[in-house]
Amino acid sequence: MPLSRKLRYGMVGGGPGAFIGAVHRKAAALDGEIELVAGAFSSDPDKSRHMGALLHLDPRRVYRSYEEMAEKEAALPPEERIDFVSIVTPNHLHYPIAKTFIEAGFHVVCDKPMTTTLEDAEDLCRLVARHNVLFALTHNYSGYPMVKQARALVQEGLLGDIRKIVVEYPQGWLATPLEQTGQKQAAWRTDPRRAGAGALGDIGSHAEHLARYITGLELDRLCADITTFVSGRQVEDDANLLVHYQNGARGILYASQVSVGEENNLRIRIYGTRASLEWHQEEPNYLYVRYPDRPEEVYKRGNEYLAPAARRASRLPAGHPEAFIEAFANIYLNFARTLKARLAGEKPDPLDLDFPTVQDGARGVHFILTALESGRRRAWVDARYTPPEA
Amino acid sequence: MPLSRKLRYGMVGGGPGAFIGAVHRKAAALDGEIELVAGAFSSDPDKSRHMGALLHLDPRRVYRSYEEMAEKEAALPPEERIDFVSIVTPNHLHYPIAKTFIEAGFHVVCDKPMTTTLEDAEDLCRLVARHNVLFALTHNYSGYPMVKQARALVQEGLLGDIRKIVVEYPQGWLATPLEQTGQKQAAWRTDPRRAGAGALGDIGSHAEHLARYITGLELDRLCADITTFVSGRQVEDDANLLVHYQNGARGILYASQVSVGEENNLRIRIYGTRASLEWHQEEPNYLYVRYPDRPEEVYKRGNEYLAPAARRASRLPAGHPEAFIEAFANIYLNFARTLKARLAGEKPDPLDLDFPTVQDGARGVHFILTALESGRRRAWVDARYTPPEA
Amino acid sequence: MPLSRKLRYGMVGGGPGAFIGAVHRKAAALDGEIELVAGAFSSDPDKSRHMGALLHLDPRRVYRSYEEMAEKEAALPPEERIDFVSIVTPNHLHYPIAKTFIEAGFHVVCDKPMTTTLEDAEDLCRLVARHNVLFALTHNYSGYPMVKQARALVQEGLLGDIRKIVVEYPQGWLATPLEQTGQKQAAWRTDPRRAGAGALGDIGSHAEHLARYITGLELDRLCADITTFVSGRQVEDDANLLVHYQNGARGILYASQVSVGEENNLRIRIYGTRASLEWHQEEPNYLYVRYPDRPEEVYKRGNEYLAPAARRASRLPAGHPEAFIEAFANIYLNFARTLKARLAGEKPDPLDLDFPTVQDGARGVHFILTALESGRRRAWVDARYTPPEA
Amino acid sequence: MPLSRKLRYGMVGGGPGAFIGAVHRKAAALDGEIELVAGAFSSDPDKSRHMGALLHLDPRRVYRSYEEMAEKEAALPPEERIDFVSIVTPNHLHYPIAKTFIEAGFHVVCDKPMTTTLEDAEDLCRLVARHNVLFALTHNYSGYPMVKQARALVQEGLLGDIRKIVVEYPQGWLATPLEQTGQKQAAWRTDPRRAGAGALGDIGSHAEHLARYITGLELDRLCADITTFVSGRQVEDDANLLVHYQNGARGILYASQVSVGEENNLRIRIYGTRASLEWHQEEPNYLYVRYPDRPEEVYKRGNEYLAPAARRASRLPAGHPEAFIEAFANIYLNFARTLKARLAGEKPDPLDLDFPTVQDGARGVHFILTALESGRRRAWVDARYTPPEA
Repeated sequence: MPLSRKLRYGMVGGGPGAFIGAVHRKAAALDGEIELVAGAFSSDPDKSRHMGALLHLDPRRVYRSYEEMAEKEAALPPEERIDFVSIVTPNHLHYPIAKTFIEAGFHVVCDKPMTTTLEDAEDLCRLVARHNVLFALTHNYSGYPMVKQARALVQEGLLGDIRKIVVEYPQGWLATPLEQTGQKQAAWRTDPRRAGAGALGDIGSHAEHLARYITGLELDRLCADITTFVSGRQVEDDANLLVHYQNGARGILYASQVSVGEENNLRIRIYGTRASLEWHQEEPNYLYVRYPDRPEEVYKRGNEYLAPAARRASRLPAGHPEAFIEAFANIYLNFARTLKARLAGEKPDPLDLDFPTVQDGARGVHFILTALESGRRRAWVDARYTPPEA
Repeated sequence: MPLSRKLRYGMVGGGPGAFIGAVHRKAAALDGEIELVAGAFSSDPDKSRHMGALLHLDPRRVYRSYEEMAEKEAALPPEERIDFVSIVTPNHLHYPIAKTFIEAGFHVVCDKPMTTTLEDAEDLCRLVARHNVLFALTHNYSGYPMVKQARALVQEGLLGDIRKIVVEYPQGWLATPLEQTGQKQAAWRTDPRRAGAGALGDIGSHAEHLARYITGLELDRLCADITTFVSGRQVEDDANLLVHYQNGARGILYASQVSVGEENNLRIRIYGTRASLEWHQEEPNYLYVRYPDRPEEVYKRGNEYLAPAARRASRLPAGHPEAFIEAFANIYLNFARTLKARLAGEKPDPLDLDFPTVQDGARGVHFILTALESGRRRAWVDARYTPPEA
Repeated sequence: MPLSRKLRYGMVGGGPGAFIGAVHRKAAALDGEIELVAGAFSSDPDKSRHMGALLHLDPRRVYRSYEEMAEKEAALPPEERIDFVSIVTPNHLHYPIAKTFIEAGFHVVCDKPMTTTLEDAEDLCRLVARHNVLFALTHNYSGYPMVKQARALVQEGLLGDIRKIVVEYPQGWLATPLEQTGQKQAAWRTDPRRAGAGALGDIGSHAEHLARYITGLELDRLCADITTFVSGRQVEDDANLLVHYQNGARGILYASQVSVGEENNLRIRIYGTRASLEWHQEEPNYLYVRYPDRPEEVYKRGNEYLAPAARRASRLPAGHPEAFIEAFANIYLNFARTLKARLAGEKPDPLDLDFPTVQDGARGVHFILTALESGRRRAWVDARYTPPEA
Repeated sequence: MPLSRKLRYGMVGGGPGAFIGAVHRKAAALDGEIELVAGAFSSDPDKSRHMGALLHLDPRRVYRSYEEMAEKEAALPPEERIDFVSIVTPNHLHYPIAKTFIEAGFHVVCDKPMTTTLEDAEDLCRLVARHNVLFALTHNYSGYPMVKQARALVQEGLLGDIRKIVVEYPQGWLATPLEQTGQKQAAWRTDPRRAGAGALGDIGSHAEHLARYITGLELDRLCADITTFVSGRQVEDDANLLVHYQNGARGILYASQVSVGEENNLRIRIYGTRASLEWHQEEPNYLYVRYPDRPEEVYKRGNEYLAPAARRASRLPAGHPEAFIEAFANIYLNFARTLKARLAGEKPDPLDLDFPTVQDGARGVHFILTALESGRRRAWVDARYTPPEA
């Protein structure tokens, strides 16, 4: 490690009752390279303070608002202030918070979907470029070692030309009007104002990113069937898409939160001219590769035969399973390594640059909005998009 | 059994090199209730004669053509002539052969898809009614005990209202231009004149039937993405569909024969308001049922806790797996029991009437043609259809 | 096929309520090469007659006893009489029936375990040799294509030297005193007089044969822990063994019929110096091969890459699963091919000789008795054995 | 949490190249409740210093020896010094280090097996009692939520009386003389002086603990088959045991490190009179429960229907898999909660007391030594044991 200290970060969001904030904190803590030192955990200052105490933070660095946090942290001496901020609020706040911290000179880790409008997303792209900060979006599924192995196999040509991608993401937890019971997660995730979109934003964007991460293929057009099954719900809870990729590949992509009995069953199958592969998020330590003329292969995490990107994303020997938090931590770890290199004035290891970027975020937002439009029009629509680059 | 003899049948098609003819013969032979006594196995009389010898048939009942077979068998005394014919030729011949035998008064078992045009399919519906013969279509996957269990669970309301159906049928065997190598199966199945359609007809129609068999739901409309990946091929080898059912359920249905590494991976998932189920053809002895609030259940073939239709479709105790041929044999067995009841002047057991009919065949043909039309138009199309009834 | 007719056989046992008799009949019928023409299905002549009628047999060839059957069939003209007998009675009758038919000049298919005493087993070895008849023992699990693939992989040295074998056979159906409820299968299988032994004979002998079939290794010594869990039961219902093989390999072998929730979960794992393999009877179309330094391989039935013995033991393309009856039928088919060659005065194809022999039967009986002795003595015992050879 | 600060700990062992030290650190860090502040990472002071720097520790608290660490930490003011020590050295050092820290008044987390002699183990039991410190042994597999669920199901009587336990722990990484290549892990784990035993100590003790943890059953007697397959190796690398439990249950327990192709395949099956269960460490989020008369159930981590001990051992919603590190962290977390309660002068929550104790360690050592003795004597031996209690 080029920098002989832990990185310091502050968190915005992640107060009592939040889900993803705790995941971010555990992921960041796991490897002993990143330290939580500040936070604005809730829009309610009391809740924020309470959370800070639970997290054993110095009360002086538990803030009443993200604006206060950005301002006061920026005023601290460099050897004390946070190196970056983690934004784990509902979606509609990602943009103003990210903008505030970027403009204050902080690097950013942000949850997904990045924003609720394409304008905001593109503005973040420009802000990141202008202020020359690092920005990572937590499409955490790309942090799994066997997803990285899948990408490596595609890149080395094992599959031949990609012909078809089937990526599916069914969940069942919103099969009833849970948001009407006061459940906090359901409430904001089905609120169009705070979430922007429903199943497409919450999980469909992961599916889109996963397919793109592994194959590198960009969307050409798509046809979406968008449904709200639960009465009274204001966002879609089921979305089924036919997609064409720019290389001519065909695809099916779907996201559902009313698929009763499903937990978090993100799965992807990719078929090439020479071989195919399959990966399941719920059993993430395996990658299945199939051939027309020889036995199926099961690649397993933790083995020497894996590609470098998969090996270094792994902490334990084979058979000692790793899972969700470890994958999430890989986003943090690559971001942290890159940031440490920058802070040390060094060039980052190219393998460290393996985390989702602000441009990935803009692509995700464009995908969500395009799918919703196709659903409204009940027609195929153009899905090509190029985000503002750095 | 109401009839104290084996049923006698003749086969049209199923000569040397054929695949499905041998399956039909083994399925028919399995339970010792049906006997092969005649055949016109090939349009080439020498091949037909050779096949008859391999099958240890009386050479006098191995015919040079199906027309000869229909005529001569009809002329035999009732205690000797075939009770029914099995048609296992390429698709385009199903119609003329079935018509010939129906008009000669014979009952019919026919492979799928039933015909290559809707006109032929509807004519068969009317012929079956007019001549009052029994007709079974070998959508063999509905013969699996755990598929019958799935149907029973849906019928008893375990799933609540059906919201979503995902049925997929990927194969990989046509990922290369196999038809250009002289492979007989590939040759006729990719020949639009003989097959009528490609992946949609060969396997997509099974997927459509399976979903309908389990849920009883009829299609409302669909949007299909139809592709021919293999250069020079004249039929589609990949078809991805979004579908709406008449009860408001949404669905994804796909069939592919270029999904390298897949063997015969027909799978279905059905999500209701209260529970969901999943079944895989390649591991057919299990049925997975999932709930929002209790452990997943794995129903296993051969157990007392299964529904009557599942129990009687099974020949072996639990843990002694049954598979493709046994499921196929269940189509024959139910058909045979129904036919025996009729021959004995008795009413058939309602559970015996559980085999696909000529109307199922017409629905399948309509589905195939509708999907192809949607693909050509790149648009959602109306998929409602009512076949001529008996 | 060298013989242009079906083989004819008669069955002893397999009356109403029997399990394995129906399996033998379906297995024999499957391929259209073997015909049931005679039987003594029960020691009760009325039941035998009734069964014969259900099976559509000529009543003149349904006999009141196996002695009558052997005598009268032997008196029929050669072109009419049975070619072989299938013995599917409780174990204690295998010996007298087999002896009777062998001495009458008939070939024999016999269920397992072959006899209840080693003396009888060895006498059968000698009788088979003296009368020069064919004898097949239905250790049906060796009929599975992927078991044959496992054997081929061991023979070609893929695993290196075998170090360890773990073969387990848990069932749960005898976890309660089912035999006291009048259940026919339970009654004779737990009756020491009729069954000879309990779990060891009924299923342990399959486990022992499976390990030997795949590896070719012979037992050196063993230490058995033999238990009867169900109160009032007169045979063991659980048997756990440590075994040494003559090449120095170690093993664990167990058979249990009180393992609640298990159905018919025969499984084997074989570890060599270079690779290991695993096969499960309940999902028999797959064979798992594992290496120290490359991805696990899943061999699947029906593929071209399999060994000749596995390919020819298969009837369907990959992905169209085969199961228990098809494996059972492979014992019959190889036996039938060998018998047809002999009847035609030809040399059998070496691949056809792949069915368990009378010597396998003697080895199995010796194994059962040795394990029981070890259990009684609570000590390691010598398990080496060489049966009388042809 | 009763104590409003992180706990502080120091580590002994876990220097460069160690495996388990890093696991302990990540497990301790995960939840943000425990902080590493000191260490004696290697018997080589340079290596220890280097490790301390990598871990961003204050150099003054990186010690040259564990003796120095115990002495100097004890001399620090209470608000600064470590609360407990984690011992992650080779086995033979556990005893002297633990003794030193216990006598200096520190609480202890210690890796397993606890000691290399029974005398040392029993002395630790007495020391823990005399000095009234907390002691946790990292039998980490008992930290998995679904293992806790298994225990809860047994305790509530779902399985009825336990009849049989099959627990197996095959690995393949020592199938070759890896210790002769300089691989550090292999070197000490196969050195009888440092490891005490081979496969039995390294992984067999986990298997024994797992069975006992879930069922509460104590060993009655056992018969072991102990083998060293790899030439030149000085400890056993394969151990197969027949075991009797004190309630009359029978069992099979095995540990192997020469099972090529296996990674870390700890599995347990427990059969009762009414139901059975199965759990696999490599896919730890599932627990299979099987019944004689209803569908198999698959319990899944993260669901409301689980027992309290399983629910609170889980950090993520269902479908977001947790794995090895999270299970390991549960040992730390329960230990930490118990310690915090004590430091706050409160009674610990009974659910927090769920971590392996010094008595568990003594039982494990007794088991290892008894199995080795049985192997030497090739006989059944008495396995009953009661450790010195607190």
